[in-house]
Amino acid sequence: MNPSGTVFEKILLDVEKDIYVENWVVSSEEFKDNSMSKWRIEKRRLKGGLGDGVDIVEVDNGRLSFTMVPTRGMGIWRGRCGEDSLGWDSPVKELVHPHYVNLEARNGLGWLAGFNEWVVRCGLENNGAPGEDVVVDNRGNQKRVILPLHGKVANIPASFVSAFVKAGKPMELGVNGEVYERSMFGPNLKLSTSVTTEVGSNWLRIRDVVENLGGIDTEMQLLYHCNYGTPLLEEGSHLMAPVKQVAPRDLRSSEGIESYSKFSKPQPGYVEQVYFHELLGDERGCTKVALVNKKATKATSLSFNLRQLPYFTLWKNMASVEDGYVIGLEPATNFPNHKAFERRHGRVVNLKPSERYEVEITFAVHSDEAEVRLLEDEVRKIQRRVKPKIFSHPDLEFSPG
Amino acid sequence: MNPSGTVFEKILLDVEKDIYVENWVVSSEEFKDNSMSKWRIEKRRLKGGLGDGVDIVEVDNGRLSFTMVPTRGMGIWRGRCGEDSLGWDSPVKELVHPHYVNLEARNGLGWLAGFNEWVVRCGLENNGAPGEDVVVDNRGNQKRVILPLHGKVANIPASFVSAFVKAGKPMELGVNGEVYERSMFGPNLKLSTSVTTEVGSNWLRIRDVVENLGGIDTEMQLLYHCNYGTPLLEEGSHLMAPVKQVAPRDLRSSEGIESYSKFSKPQPGYVEQVYFHELLGDERGCTKVALVNKKATKATSLSFNLRQLPYFTLWKNMASVEDGYVIGLEPATNFPNHKAFERRHGRVVNLKPSERYEVEITFAVHSDEAEVRLLEDEVRKIQRRVKPKIFSHPDLEFSPG
Amino acid sequence: MNPSGTVFEKILLDVEKDIYVENWVVSSEEFKDNSMSKWRIEKRRLKGGLGDGVDIVEVDNGRLSFTMVPTRGMGIWRGRCGEDSLGWDSPVKELVHPHYVNLEARNGLGWLAGFNEWVVRCGLENNGAPGEDVVVDNRGNQKRVILPLHGKVANIPASFVSAFVKAGKPMELGVNGEVYERSMFGPNLKLSTSVTTEVGSNWLRIRDVVENLGGIDTEMQLLYHCNYGTPLLEEGSHLMAPVKQVAPRDLRSSEGIESYSKFSKPQPGYVEQVYFHELLGDERGCTKVALVNKKATKATSLSFNLRQLPYFTLWKNMASVEDGYVIGLEPATNFPNHKAFERRHGRVVNLKPSERYEVEITFAVHSDEAEVRLLEDEVRKIQRRVKPKIFSHPDLEFSPG
Repeated sequence: MNPSGTVFEKILLDVEKDIYVENWVVSSEEFKDNSMSKWRIEKRRLKGGLGDGVDIVEVDNGRLSFTMVPTRGMGIWRGRCGEDSLGWDSPVKELVHPHYVNLEARNGLGWLAGFNEWVVRCGLENNGAPGEDVVVDNRGNQKRVILPLHGKVANIPASFVSAFVKAGKPMELGVNGEVYERSMFGPNLKLSTSVTTEVGSNWLRIRDVVENLGGIDTEMQLLYHCNYGTPLLEEGSHLMAPVKQVAPRDLRSSEGIESYSKFSKPQPGYVEQVYFHELLGDERGCTKVALVNKKATKATSLSFNLRQLPYFTLWKNMASVEDGYVIGLEPATNFPNHKAFERRHGRVVNLKPSERYEVEITFAVHSDEAEVRLLEDEVRKIQRRVKPKIFSHPDLEFSPG
Repeated sequence: MNPSGTVFEKILLDVEKDIYVENWVVSSEEFKDNSMSKWRIEKRRLKGGLGDGVDIVEVDNGRLSFTMVPTRGMGIWRGRCGEDSLGWDSPVKELVHPHYVNLEARNGLGWLAGFNEWVVRCGLENNGAPGEDVVVDNRGNQKRVILPLHGKVANIPASFVSAFVKAGKPMELGVNGEVYERSMFGPNLKLSTSVTTEVGSNWLRIRDVVENLGGIDTEMQLLYHCNYGTPLLEEGSHLMAPVKQVAPRDLRSSEGIESYSKFSKPQPGYVEQVYFHELLGDERGCTKVALVNKKATKATSLSFNLRQLPYFTLWKNMASVEDGYVIGLEPATNFPNHKAFERRHGRVVNLKPSERYEVEITFAVHSDEAEVRLLEDEVRKIQRRVKPKIFSHPDLEFSPG
Repeated sequence: MNPSGTVFEKILLDVEKDIYVENWVVSSEEFKDNSMSKWRIEKRRLKGGLGDGVDIVEVDNGRLSFTMVPTRGMGIWRGRCGEDSLGWDSPVKELVHPHYVNLEARNGLGWLAGFNEWVVRCGLENNGAPGEDVVVDNRGNQKRVILPLHGKVANIPASFVSAFVKAGKPMELGVNGEVYERSMFGPNLKLSTSVTTEVGSNWLRIRDVVENLGGIDTEMQLLYHCNYGTPLLEEGSHLMAPVKQVAPRDLRSSEGIESYSKFSKPQPGYVEQVYFHELLGDERGCTKVALVNKKATKATSLSFNLRQLPYFTLWKNMASVEDGYVIGLEPATNFPNHKAFERRHGRVVNLKPSERYEVEITFAVHSDEAEVRLLEDEVRKIQRRVKPKIFSHPDLEFSPG
């Protein structure tokens, strides 16, 4: 056993150094980990179908497991904790190589053809609803372009990937990745991500840094689309969150504002409802939201900081299982309106040359009543005596309505 | 030799089960087939050029051979029967990976960059001329989108492929495939295809099922673009078909209405002519069309059922050999007008959740005068004494003109 | 040693013959070349990241080396001569597979997402600024389509590649390639290229032939986008060229007309300036342009013939190093305005069926004062006593302004 803190890192992909490892595995057995937990990290390349050529890295800490997808912007396809699957059941079953996703297709909705991840980043030039925006082109002229739904980053392959094991009790397992969203005469943004977990634990943590590599200021948007279906999502389950304000996105969403945080059973033909939140945080800005099942015996939570991710969106798609019965918990730098609207409301990040934007989110799974009660206490503590302000109708500060 | 009816099936691709076979072959030799015919099924993956990464399955029954293309929606690239090639000589010579086909490019004409198959399905959300249509988006709003020429299915890779050999006298050879045309908030259609032939025979049969996997009703269109060039297409060859009505698609096509079913030699600069048919069928709806060579010594026929494929289109492109001298025989669920026009004329299929749409087409090659005469008798029998109604000008029931 | 003129040719890719070589190398050692120079040709396939699946061929003549990219239309990624790198430092660092380039994205500017080559061809249907054009579609109707920035050819993989070694003193090394830009009902153009160098030399030569394989006349445009950054580009470096006329492309460019041929240091936020040239040539049409460093101790030149490439463009992008500090020397069949403008000014090539258009360009590196002085003499000789006409403002003969 190595001394605590020692890191073993395996580079799986480094475009600059011309390194690419097609298949690779490391596990508790080879690593002579004497703990009870059997952990494992495996890197594979998929073959055939829409996922042909997609690289995945599967991390299993012995209790919680998840699948990273370097080829799809270092998203997390799906997870599992004990018996329960994390993520959702999209109509799109297989991992889709970005080659098959034409973001500008269907009037900017092409992103949906590859959408089935548990956690998918939306950004970096833009996220949210598709539509026209004005950018400055190579001639210095204003040019109208389509900004497609949720931006490019989820469909850009990583240029660097490594897996690492950090000695300690418990040991830490992790995957690092770098994704570049860049073009000549366009944004030049680097996403560096580190996703870690501890052996035997019920959590994983994403630490992201977005850096402007360009020589001039650039805009940036970042949203974490964290999606849950059955079994955690069920009739009677609900969203738990410390809320300052919440507003329905549109008239359709205002129909359901009275029970906006409650989830129903699947309803064929259901049209999505979306709620924009301003959350409360503790003195350091830390906050926590969770999906809690009907009996309050299980929950899954997201912890993050409002100074990094000040806006939170709840996406309710109570459609039939076939059409994607799912909710999205979406902490972000903005609301997922069209970028032009967000810019007018001051919700677009500006990064100077070399400036970095850091984000940390922790995902945890709570597996019994006691753990769920603890979670409730935490959220209640953040809420304190603040009475949430709930807008019954769309408000122009939040959305175009 | 196995007892009659026993099936040997080899799974070549199964995304769900993570199975992918790069190269594989089975033949009469290994199979201890004591018949005279040397048959063979071979699966390969192409490398380099525009076809890099394309999977093909070549089936040779000893007399008739053809190449299936799982990566291009289970289309049939080209065939051969004895000396004669089946298919045509497109300006696009090589198989084109869907990655190189941007369907929305060139104002919705991008499909043409990969068009060179003998038999290619057009569908499933739409087929026919490109143009704007209105769909319902995730918010329940109407959204204008481009429906590209001939839809997506020919540029979607299969998620399941197997090859099989069925014992019997004669033996049956076949390829099964599954292709999914689906997206979150979009159509969710599954095409299951089984293409079979018998050892030593002059035919192959396509059996397709399209199923709506979604939780709500969905529209569906399906057209089989079956294309023939030389040697069967030649000056003096003609289309043989039992016709109830035929109408030219546009003014250009009405120019040639008098000899619409006759084929000329290649003419540089020729602009395509298209004829929309209502065919006659027998009491069960069965019908048959054929391309017959000048001397009536060779023909190639399509047999199908009008209850499944009620509309038939003849595409005449008598252009130079360099520009694609070809005719298309196109049985379909509709005429290949823009979908919005077909919808107004009740020619778009509606599928309820789990509803299936079945289609069967048999392709046969007739290699001497006697066989061609037999074919003529069959078609004449279906025509009986019905006098075809021939529209000299475009008719608004058939096309926008 | 083989007798002079004997050619050893290795086919690395031939789609028609189903030949593909993934990795291959030949060098002076195996070839028993007794000369002092150690030369080498190596073919590799990249793995991982945006360049996954890209084929490259690296040629090193012992003094000058360069990397051909069959997967990107036989462009030249980057080169090196002694200590000096040839090419530039684009914000896009890695080779980008065409699959990741959607030419129609960003309102026709998608090409920029893959732009980082030293020498990249722009064409063949069009080059220059993106915008709408009118083409004739399959029905003989006029159809409005987007012609994307700089056309398709740089994002089409070659269908044939070979490397060759020609015996002699010195030996010749070369790479041949064939790229097809074709579609049903679209242009049908074949680019055949042969890139050669001599062992130990300071030059490479591109010999291109574009042929119309179609049965009818077709338009063609071809521009060689030859890009240079540091170290040859530096404050005080300049363009040397025999000039008849030069005009700024737009008002932004006219701002810098007084020092149009001088290059400054990188300036964050600089907006590109572009100058359209009519050059002078010798009695056979031969001409020469060069980028000369500040001290006149180093230069890189392009030699070509005005009968083949009558129009020359200088692109100045004096932006920060992060945003692409670069100049482009661009000999072409036209100016890189939108094709419709060039057509109106008679600067679009028309090719009849089977007609061929030949181009030859030689790139050389001049490494000391004496060589640079020789180069200056050559250019001065072509200039003779002709006084360049310099337009201070955009002129409608050259650009829309």
